[in-house]
Amino acid sequence: MSICGKSIALNIYKNINSDLVKLKSNNVIPGLAIILIGDDKSSIVYTKMKEKKCKELGINSYYYHLNSNISKNDVINKINTLNNDNNIHGILMQLPFPNHLNKSTYEILNEIDIKKDVDGFHTTNVGQLFLNKTPRFYPCTPLGCIEILKYYNVEISGKNVVVVGCSQIVGKPLAMMFLNLEATVTICHIKTKNLKEHTLKADILCVATGVPNLITKDMIKKDSIILDIGITKIKKDDTNDTNDKDNKNNKNYKLVGDCDYDNILNYSKLITPVPGGVGPLTIAMLMRQTVNSALFNLNNSN
Amino acid sequence: MSICGKSIALNIYKNINSDLVKLKSNNVIPGLAIILIGDDKSSIVYTKMKEKKCKELGINSYYYHLNSNISKNDVINKINTLNNDNNIHGILMQLPFPNHLNKSTYEILNEIDIKKDVDGFHTTNVGQLFLNKTPRFYPCTPLGCIEILKYYNVEISGKNVVVVGCSQIVGKPLAMMFLNLEATVTICHIKTKNLKEHTLKADILCVATGVPNLITKDMIKKDSIILDIGITKIKKDDTNDTNDKDNKNNKNYKLVGDCDYDNILNYSKLITPVPGGVGPLTIAMLMRQTVNSALFNLNNSN
Repeated sequence: MSICGKSIALNIYKNINSDLVKLKSNNVIPGLAIILIGDDKSSIVYTKMKEKKCKELGINSYYYHLNSNISKNDVINKINTLNNDNNIHGILMQLPFPNHLNKSTYEILNEIDIKKDVDGFHTTNVGQLFLNKTPRFYPCTPLGCIEILKYYNVEISGKNVVVVGCSQIVGKPLAMMFLNLEATVTICHIKTKNLKEHTLKADILCVATGVPNLITKDMIKKDSIILDIGITKIKKDDTNDTNDKDNKNNKNYKLVGDCDYDNILNYSKLITPVPGGVGPLTIAMLMRQTVNSALFNLNNSN
Repeated sequence: MSICGKSIALNIYKNINSDLVKLKSNNVIPGLAIILIGDDKSSIVYTKMKEKKCKELGINSYYYHLNSNISKNDVINKINTLNNDNNIHGILMQLPFPNHLNKSTYEILNEIDIKKDVDGFHTTNVGQLFLNKTPRFYPCTPLGCIEILKYYNVEISGKNVVVVGCSQIVGKPLAMMFLNLEATVTICHIKTKNLKEHTLKADILCVATGVPNLITKDMIKKDSIILDIGITKIKKDDTNDTNDKDNKNNKNYKLVGDCDYDNILNYSKLITPVPGGVGPLTIAMLMRQTVNSALFNLNNSN
């Protein structure tokens, strides 16, 4: 069965709406600062989606599009201003940073007040996740994956979970969340030999590599659950427009995940499509955590 | 082949000795504060071993045996004093804490200056390990395990590593170190179903559960490498002294690991005995990191 991420997200937005009413009655409107550095086209699309969702829900969004040449110090100064602004409950820094800041990613992220770290990437929040000490915020995409499984009442304790891809943003924290939920967890990656040997054992298989068609039907266990987190823009097979080298935003392209969805769909118990699977949950979790941040402040000021 | 932890540790002490000469020529003697709270017999033995090793090497040790009823605030005050003492380069808090402090373990550990956290348990150091950002200090037992494999030039990248036991002190950080070294890592624990299915795939099997004989020969792959980190005191089979209920420190007891060592020895490529395997490396790594801390200070003051 195909998982409809949008429906699950809608359910979350329903809960958010009632929290927003409660906050409003206390004269609080949650505020999310969205910081984009540079002009990466995908990053612009993602940040605009987040801004749009804030507007739809009635969350204040503050969009900062910083010049791609900005210095590390100027970024940190911006963060400090937002840390001290009581109207801001969450600070999201769109990743990846431009090349000159890339090696300082965590130095910059660690400047965010951990009470506003709604993307969950601060070393302290990550450390608490690792220590199973309930961080205030979790990385949004892994949190969305767990939310999907909760929605379907999937038992996680004792299950074999295989995570393919071990990025700091998705694979590693996701593996850690599954471990904290008592799954037996295997983490595979580009150096893994005989990937299929591992994926075939998975009751729950999570794939976040950005390699289209990495996972084929012969690599999965029948009736397992597949969360496809990869997202890649590829040219449609039926187009042959040789003038289209530079424009990847048009109808000749489509988004695909890491799994051979069409052939796996009826062989698996549940599978997320790309797009429309995990993606909507990532944004929903960002909104959820921003509202949680405002609720936390409210509950601790009363 | 049986791994001789003592020989590997001796090698490390040789390097430490030459660093100590260098430090001494700059009028620096590394100092390690060892804090024990309460009267747990094993903890007393472990801390005394650490103190003794400091003396042997010429590292200053400062042993604080705090009353088992001490308040959290008094422990934290003690830590703060040591944080501000320039003669102290490392602070070791023996775990576990007594019951009334147990739930505050990380709150207390996080009071240690991360530049003196030679046991590597501060949330920031753990978070950096998780993010593969080279923490200043690593947890000593997992670091000792990696040191053993380095000593034997064992290639780790691409290998199947299975870690059984997922404690914050050993299993989890060890799994993370292996992942950072590009192994495919599976983490098993008490909720794992069919443990044997996983252990049979391991090129390197690490076991840290405290369950004697958990791992038997039929559960391991021929010519694999076995690191047995468990340590349990059990009664010798050939004793039948019913008057010995209260005294576990005498000759009727012996220390064992989690593996059926005798039967596995010739079936595996390398295996650590218990005692004498990983244990000596844990202390060696504590000494190594204490000296590193003093070296770091020296190199950054010049």
